Amino acid sequence: MNLKQMVGIESAKYVKDGMIVGLGTGSTAYYMVEEIGRRMKEEGLHITGVTTSKATEEQALGLGIPLKSIDEVSHVDLTIDGADEISADFQGTKGGGAALLFEKIVASYSKEVIWIVDESKMVNLLGKFPLPVEVIPYGSEQLLKKFNNKQYNGKIRLQEDGTPLLTDSNNYIIDLHLEAIENPQELATWLDHQVGVVEHGLFLNIVNRVIIGTSSEGVKTIEVTR
Amino acid sequence: MNLKQMVGIESAKYVKDGMIVGLGTGSTAYYMVEEIGRRMKEEGLHITGVTTSKATEEQALGLGIPLKSIDEVSHVDLTIDGADEISADFQGTKGGGAALLFEKIVASYSKEVIWIVDESKMVNLLGKFPLPVEVIPYGSEQLLKKFNNKQYNGKIRLQEDGTPLLTDSNNYIIDLHLEAIENPQELATWLDHQVGVVEHGLFLNIVNRVIIGTSSEGVKTIEVTR
Repeated sequence: MNLKQMVGIESAKYVKDGMIVGLGTGSTAYYMVEEIGRRMKEEGLHITGVTTSKATEEQALGLGIPLKSIDEVSHVDLTIDGADEISADFQGTKGGGAALLFEKIVASYSKEVIWIVDESKMVNLLGKFPLPVEVIPYGSEQLLKKFNNKQYNGKIRLQEDGTPLLTDSNNYIIDLHLEAIENPQELATWLDHQVGVVEHGLFLNIVNRVIIGTSSEGVKTIEVTR
Repeated sequence: MNLKQMVGIESAKYVKDGMIVGLGTGSTAYYMVEEIGRRMKEEGLHITGVTTSKATEEQALGLGIPLKSIDEVSHVDLTIDGADEISADFQGTKGGGAALLFEKIVASYSKEVIWIVDESKMVNLLGKFPLPVEVIPYGSEQLLKKFNNKQYNGKIRLQEDGTPLLTDSNNYIIDLHLEAIENPQELATWLDHQVGVVEHGLFLNIVNRVIIGTSSEGVKTIEVTR
């Protein structure tokens, strides 16, 4: 079993009968969704899923997980999702899979958030992994210039055919190659204020539990208190 | 000549040969675009237009105004646009026509911004006119609840057939019926930070000149210095 699979299965233990569960997106969240599907089939677990991407929606429907949109539920009990990087103080970046907008919308309405990662995602400072920023296509070249005047080394994410990748909301992603984010809160605030920025991949003060897959010690679970 | 036509024609005088001009949207901006078209035809004026909506794009193309996207120009010399309300300290709200996102993108890259309004738009405090907030459809009902927990009296803007109106970026508009906005900067900052908010209709510290059509004194032009 690989590390992603280990933490995916572990995280599904926190899902209780009757819960409304935010289902994350990506190669680690994939295993969590599979395990929830297995528990529903084999253990008779009942949940309602709230998806964060078209990809996860397809996977969940294939497993027979009943889904509702975030707008059809009164609340979300728990969201389980991957992360691209988690810093020593448990701030995170997400969006490598381009689903950061819906992931953040669902997480922001969740009573509890669990991140599942392999140990390579645990870092001291955020920023080695490019920080995705979802932007409105109109004005994206101007925004890119603005970012790069600040030495943020932004690049519009392209598809294989060389055209800009479109998110599930038909926006572009600008990846900022920052190397080190000294002050995530300051950067998040600045990005929030930029016209044309829809959302960014800094997920601050949002996670309650981190489940880490390590090759030497197995699964480690950390409760985050703020 | 009505007041909107008066200020539309007056504002076009600030357009000089060779300029890159942001062309606003709405019933007042309409007359400005018409007048620029007339000057190009009759006076040999040459400009490049940058549009803020599909509606203005159609109008400009019909008049033979050459257009570029905001991403194809190095800068914008001047943007002329209407406003829904302008306060005593020259802060404004826009978006009654649902084009606030592209209007704000173009204005934010403009060296100079002129607003053209009839006198009914000049107010002491902003807020009688509903404040439009452009939001991602996914999560819009949750966001509406959040707004209304703060007594912002939000309503998703509907089309005649009762379905939500879609902006040029396929987002929804939530109109906040606030009556009075005591602290526009504070509200703008709060809205900027909300997940799912793409942009809002508060245009702060952005206008350089306001041209007002009055029935008693004709056209009044105010230079705004900050």
